[in-house]
Amino acid sequence: MHTPDATGTLYIVSAPSGAGKSSLVKALLGQDPDIRLSVSYTTRAPRPGEVNGSHYHFVTREDFLDRLARGEFLESAEVYGNYYGTSHEWIRSMTTAGADILLEIDWQGAAQVRRLLPDSVGIFILPPSIEALKERLEGRAQDSAEVIGTRLAAARADIEHAFEYDYLVVNDRFELALDELQAIVRARRNGIQRQMHRLAPLIATLLSR
Amino acid sequence: MHTPDATGTLYIVSAPSGAGKSSLVKALLGQDPDIRLSVSYTTRAPRPGEVNGSHYHFVTREDFLDRLARGEFLESAEVYGNYYGTSHEWIRSMTTAGADILLEIDWQGAAQVRRLLPDSVGIFILPPSIEALKERLEGRAQDSAEVIGTRLAAARADIEHAFEYDYLVVNDRFELALDELQAIVRARRNGIQRQMHRLAPLIATLLSR
Repeated sequence: MHTPDATGTLYIVSAPSGAGKSSLVKALLGQDPDIRLSVSYTTRAPRPGEVNGSHYHFVTREDFLDRLARGEFLESAEVYGNYYGTSHEWIRSMTTAGADILLEIDWQGAAQVRRLLPDSVGIFILPPSIEALKERLEGRAQDSAEVIGTRLAAARADIEHAFEYDYLVVNDRFELALDELQAIVRARRNGIQRQMHRLAPLIATLLSR
Repeated sequence: MHTPDATGTLYIVSAPSGAGKSSLVKALLGQDPDIRLSVSYTTRAPRPGEVNGSHYHFVTREDFLDRLARGEFLESAEVYGNYYGTSHEWIRSMTTAGADILLEIDWQGAAQVRRLLPDSVGIFILPPSIEALKERLEGRAQDSAEVIGTRLAAARADIEHAFEYDYLVVNDRFELALDELQAIVRARRNGIQRQMHRLAPLIATLLSR
């Protein structure tokens, strides 16, 4: 059976902690209704208000392990005894239907997903300076210098992988960084791969005699 | 001698007549100071107010033919006895210095330039419907049906090459099309190729202990 080309895009967004990724992603999703977060599979119980298929795909441990054994997950992890995974099939079905999906993930997960889905677009978010990074890492709580040092080392280990991404966005002024993220998504929608599907009918009428 | 990678981008913009390309390009250049039109070489005399190096590079016929013989032009044409040409070296020097350059050119010229400069970015602008295209082609003057038919045939011959470009922009609502053009240019500025030059000092300070 012929599988139509995916016309939506998977965006993989990574950043060291302290770069402000989550706020940027939340603002992007808030202003652009045509992009949505990847919905993970999980074995943990739904919390009050969480909707199956919207916040998570809630599944039993048996179901999850079956899917894992079948290689259905692009990446997966066990956290405090619960499993979490990103379904290859779910992302394919969403992007084939034309949806843009955003996946927040660390550089290891990103590398794994990009090997399997080379058409995905990687975006890495950077802090504007070492001072800003330190300030943001310190600002989180009244932690010891040692704890902050450990965080900084972890952030640096992430930043070492920045050049593996397609785009780099510096989060200096929040609104500017948000505009840059939005421009990346908008430009991709005008890309030939998507437009040759979307505009085929228009071009056919322009060319028909 | 080491030639640094070009960090600016050459944008090649094509469209059938009647698509509104010139107005869009003018508006883009008006709002984005970091992108400028390609400056052609020409053998025609400067008109009042035209500045050498800004509107055109004005050269003698002998100089032009020398450059042509040396293969300096990405593309060239003779119009009413005057020569016009796009200098490879000028574009390389501008983009190496980090400037974005926009070249308005037909599909034949675009194909020629893209073979020589595969890193350039091609954008094709389309009218939103056959009715809009006909209306715009008719609106130009009180021409005969035959003349309009010839223009329509020429527009269709251009549109047949739309899929050779990297981006397609439909000029339905002018402001929306302008936003899409601007997003393409902005996104490219966040691309890894340019950012790895521009952000190398920042990343070095983030990583240094």
